[in-house]
Amino acid sequence: MITPDKANPLRESREVFIKMVVSNWELQNQRLNGLLAKLPDERLLVSVAEGKNRAIYLLGHLVAINDGMISLLGLGERLYPELDELFVKNPDGKFDQIPSVAELKAKWTNLNQVLTGYFAELDAEEWFRKHNAISDEDFAREPHRNKLNILINRTNHQAYHLGQLIFLKA
Amino acid sequence: MITPDKANPLRESREVFIKMVVSNWELQNQRLNGLLAKLPDERLLVSVAEGKNRAIYLLGHLVAINDGMISLLGLGERLYPELDELFVKNPDGKFDQIPSVAELKAKWTNLNQVLTGYFAELDAEEWFRKHNAISDEDFAREPHRNKLNILINRTNHQAYHLGQLIFLKA
Repeated sequence: MITPDKANPLRESREVFIKMVVSNWELQNQRLNGLLAKLPDERLLVSVAEGKNRAIYLLGHLVAINDGMISLLGLGERLYPELDELFVKNPDGKFDQIPSVAELKAKWTNLNQVLTGYFAELDAEEWFRKHNAISDEDFAREPHRNKLNILINRTNHQAYHLGQLIFLKA
Repeated sequence: MITPDKANPLRESREVFIKMVVSNWELQNQRLNGLLAKLPDERLLVSVAEGKNRAIYLLGHLVAINDGMISLLGLGERLYPELDELFVKNPDGKFDQIPSVAELKAKWTNLNQVLTGYFAELDAEEWFRKHNAISDEDFAREPHRNKLNILINRTNHQAYHLGQLIFLKA
């Protein structure tokens, strides 16, 4: 946990921003984890609604997209880049062989631990620097398109799919 | 549009952060507006998935919850407090008489114009003050639970329901 630095108002203020964004991300994680804890694994093999994606696909999709933050934010090497082919670049049903629900749940839990560690260590200033998918020129014009903005965006993306996964609840 | 104030790094930093949060809210609005523009009104009378809420209920729910920000953030008088009874405090199907899709779409558009105006005028410092649903004591301990945090939370809430409304798309 970052300790607020009262002697430096700019730093303190940045730390409050970061806390706002990270805590909203954590809230979405808690909600998804709560849902996953309630559903038996085989329940995730069905579509969340008629003709829509299976829950297992959405779970793999969330692991892949959130794992992508590791490289986008320059935090390190991605954990599961091989999931992009199965869960991002192709639609549900394209492949017969995909990881099991248990495997994806384990990856999801591990990814969130790894991201939590990275986020806790990232310097406050660093969060407001450019991410790896925007040019120097664009970032000079649009400084709000920084690393922390990616986390806001990915949290909204996760909420969007949680709204779909929740349909599995009786 | 707020002009960044380069002479005051704390203010500039706050303005960048506000821009991040507001632009992510605007992005969610654009996505929902894009979907609404594609669907004939009668399409919103059906459930988004079997046994789930009707789209008209979700639209009313989003108007009511986002309208609630006006009082929560101390911006002024709410526009449509009467919608809470229909779309927040009670589940879909409880009332025979609810506003029409056309009426709710008009309220949605008007609400977003009004909120956009309020947000543009709100002073950067004011966004980081406490909202009206947290005590002074709690806010002293948790300064991240400020007005801007409400907008982050409501944007995630909107993304969650957009993930459901999108199921109406063919």
